[in-house]
Amino acid sequence: MAKDKKLVESITSMDVDFAQWYTDVVKKAELCDYASVKGCMVIKPAGYAIWENIQHELDRRFKETGVENVYMPLFIPESLLEKEKDHVEGFAPEVAWVTHGGLEPLQERLCVRPTSETLFCDFYAKDIHSYRDLPKVYNQWCSVVRWEKTTRPFLRSREFLWQEGHTAHATAEEAEERTIQMLNLYTDFCEEVLAIPVIRGQKTDKEKFAGAEATYTIESLMHDGKALQSGTSHNFGDGFAKAFGIQYAAKDNSLQYVHQTSWGMTTRMIGAIIMVHGDDNGLVLPPRIAPTQVMIVPIQQQKEGVLDKAFALREVLSGFRVKVDDSDKSPGWKFSESEMRGIPVRVEIGPRDIENNEAVLVRRDTHEKLTVSMDELAAKVGELLDTIQQDMLEKARKHRDAHTYQAADYDTFVKIINEKPGFVKAMWCGDQACEDKIKEDTAATSRCMPFAQEQISDKCICCGKPAKKMVYWGRAY
Amino acid sequence: MAKDKKLVESITSMDVDFAQWYTDVVKKAELCDYASVKGCMVIKPAGYAIWENIQHELDRRFKETGVENVYMPLFIPESLLEKEKDHVEGFAPEVAWVTHGGLEPLQERLCVRPTSETLFCDFYAKDIHSYRDLPKVYNQWCSVVRWEKTTRPFLRSREFLWQEGHTAHATAEEAEERTIQMLNLYTDFCEEVLAIPVIRGQKTDKEKFAGAEATYTIESLMHDGKALQSGTSHNFGDGFAKAFGIQYAAKDNSLQYVHQTSWGMTTRMIGAIIMVHGDDNGLVLPPRIAPTQVMIVPIQQQKEGVLDKAFALREVLSGFRVKVDDSDKSPGWKFSESEMRGIPVRVEIGPRDIENNEAVLVRRDTHEKLTVSMDELAAKVGELLDTIQQDMLEKARKHRDAHTYQAADYDTFVKIINEKPGFVKAMWCGDQACEDKIKEDTAATSRCMPFAQEQISDKCICCGKPAKKMVYWGRAY
Repeated sequence: MAKDKKLVESITSMDVDFAQWYTDVVKKAELCDYASVKGCMVIKPAGYAIWENIQHELDRRFKETGVENVYMPLFIPESLLEKEKDHVEGFAPEVAWVTHGGLEPLQERLCVRPTSETLFCDFYAKDIHSYRDLPKVYNQWCSVVRWEKTTRPFLRSREFLWQEGHTAHATAEEAEERTIQMLNLYTDFCEEVLAIPVIRGQKTDKEKFAGAEATYTIESLMHDGKALQSGTSHNFGDGFAKAFGIQYAAKDNSLQYVHQTSWGMTTRMIGAIIMVHGDDNGLVLPPRIAPTQVMIVPIQQQKEGVLDKAFALREVLSGFRVKVDDSDKSPGWKFSESEMRGIPVRVEIGPRDIENNEAVLVRRDTHEKLTVSMDELAAKVGELLDTIQQDMLEKARKHRDAHTYQAADYDTFVKIINEKPGFVKAMWCGDQACEDKIKEDTAATSRCMPFAQEQISDKCICCGKPAKKMVYWGRAY
Repeated sequence: MAKDKKLVESITSMDVDFAQWYTDVVKKAELCDYASVKGCMVIKPAGYAIWENIQHELDRRFKETGVENVYMPLFIPESLLEKEKDHVEGFAPEVAWVTHGGLEPLQERLCVRPTSETLFCDFYAKDIHSYRDLPKVYNQWCSVVRWEKTTRPFLRSREFLWQEGHTAHATAEEAEERTIQMLNLYTDFCEEVLAIPVIRGQKTDKEKFAGAEATYTIESLMHDGKALQSGTSHNFGDGFAKAFGIQYAAKDNSLQYVHQTSWGMTTRMIGAIIMVHGDDNGLVLPPRIAPTQVMIVPIQQQKEGVLDKAFALREVLSGFRVKVDDSDKSPGWKFSESEMRGIPVRVEIGPRDIENNEAVLVRRDTHEKLTVSMDELAAKVGELLDTIQQDMLEKARKHRDAHTYQAADYDTFVKIINEKPGFVKAMWCGDQACEDKIKEDTAATSRCMPFAQEQISDKCICCGKPAKKMVYWGRAY
């Protein structure tokens, strides 16, 4: 028994050191590993399978809204990156530069894409001629590179995987509609699939994307009370179109600039899943995203009929993503391993269970055990997976709500930020000087101006001038 | 009518100029476009959708054989690339080098991966300890960069998309088995899905992969009689394992080196589809890989009931990948466009057809027309797609066989290579000097030593010494 506990004991308790707990889970659940290049990840099978499920679920939803996938080059010539002023200022300090191709120095440096607005714009300028060519609703799945100084697996790495959607529309209204549509799609995905509740809102000018007119965001709260920006959707207006000369002939033959959007979600969501749902036994995966939903663990598998029964149950459960752990490890070790990897339901089956025509189901999220008749197994497992999915969302929502505070004066605000990790709702005058001061005083940033505004007071929490917006504030990853 | 022909007339006839025909089809079928960076592609929706289907079909087959997907970093430190001598010699002259991260010069140059053997080896050296950790059967989907001097869309570009499988095994036998297994998987995929027949065989030492003990290949023949290497599978033996120190404790506790393989298939297969099946009306897609299998074209769509019927038929055909072209273009233009894009079956439906409870099916591959009863439409379309798939493979096989020659003496060999584009089967002594001379004299290379050996003569075609192998020779892309 002591030996079986080893795997669990190998991870730090989350209350002792959350950052270390996170790193331990990433490693022990075999999600990713460090690579030879500082700040780059090796995403291992257990981690990549989660990403494949994220891709599959998002891509299906994208295509239902008319998105088409494309692939743009990895490299951006320096002159192209420089075409939109705000954009280059935002990204140039953190890109990787290619200076040699083969044995020859390049005539012009190429940066490895940190994001692909400039490439899409360059392409759209050539490809869009008439209103008939609009809208363009393109997306690509790829990796991008940002030369970060401090890195953490999934959350902040020099290379990460993502999707980036880039659209061009005839009108400002249509672009705004697409921006919000994709934010809502991300919201539904996070809540329905990842069981992560989010706050939807708009970024302040200080926090918006380099080159955007408006950036919308979904913000989620991790178990330690820190915020995580979980997906963003940008409305560029016609700023990029003017910088790149993307014009179309309208029906009345007049030449018009297009209106553009972009929106992205990344492998950092794997970090979010870990930090929202995980516990001291390791990863806890929501059933809809779990690569393996059910792990069948045979007990006394050397006894005749046990393994056969385990494999027979795998057939019974073939409507789910199911595996049998028939390795030569002890059942206790298998339990721990299945928990560490976050598999939502464990099915235990031993000689006595077989005799009684029963099996034991164990929930990963609550550790609750249920004995069910073998005849009802598939139905019960299906119900249980649905229940777990719902319960995980509810639990996360309760945790988020319990860690969302509000403040009407600056002292209270600072005290909450310092003592109670979570979101703080407070009023803001709209002036960046106040945002800067709050960040300096507390290390908290404005996470978003939520769509669901409340009137907490009528004054800015910081300067006392008339408030314009309620803002969610918090320390963030 | 003249106007409707415009689209077709905009592409060069393949008999006049095959290279120009290829470029025209790539452009007019909207598969890809040139990017600002020389030699890099923008893969457009119609091209990327083919790649998605290739990915889907290959990935499913991979996973059935136990492959797990992972993601390795984009960058390889120079010192890591240099660890295996043959490998670095093969790749260093054609890699892109990153020398700056953000505003700082890097301490060590990083190359953008041209292939990822070194990264997988570096990872395996850390991750493999015991026989229990074997086999590792990993694959990744990504882009790679090779700084080619002359480039052509899909066939040879500075960046291309591919999958690269990298495996580690306990024994040499197991590694060889996996190498051949993946070559066979590629063979089945090419023939069953892409309708492209291939020759399976082994590369000569001159043509094998940098660092491999043995490279196996599948070679296909394009419509113009040039060969295309379509997929390769390499057995590395324990060469990389020794260079990188990848050892495991065997059951008897002895320390052993692993045996490794790698295998890949790329976006160049989109080029192969174009060049094997295309005709003077554009692309011809095998049904199993076609993003749209059926295009419904309403005739006189302004007449009451026609568009409704077209959309009703889309429902009837919902078991296939089907679209309705309800744009305001003329039917003739729609026909040409659907042909240009290679859609396997066109369904024409007009007022008279509706009256007769019929629809007209038009095959893309043969232009044959069939009138079928509306009641049997789904069944007939299903049969027709199967027939087209089979016929396309047969047609390609016949073309390949009709352009496969054999030669027993050097004069005949040179004459065939110069006058009759295709494969030439001829005997070889095994000496690289003969390969070099043949290439110099004819620009033909040894494509492979086929598994199915024949005895054409007993002497090397080039030097007259005793022959060791029959080789497929040809000019290649």
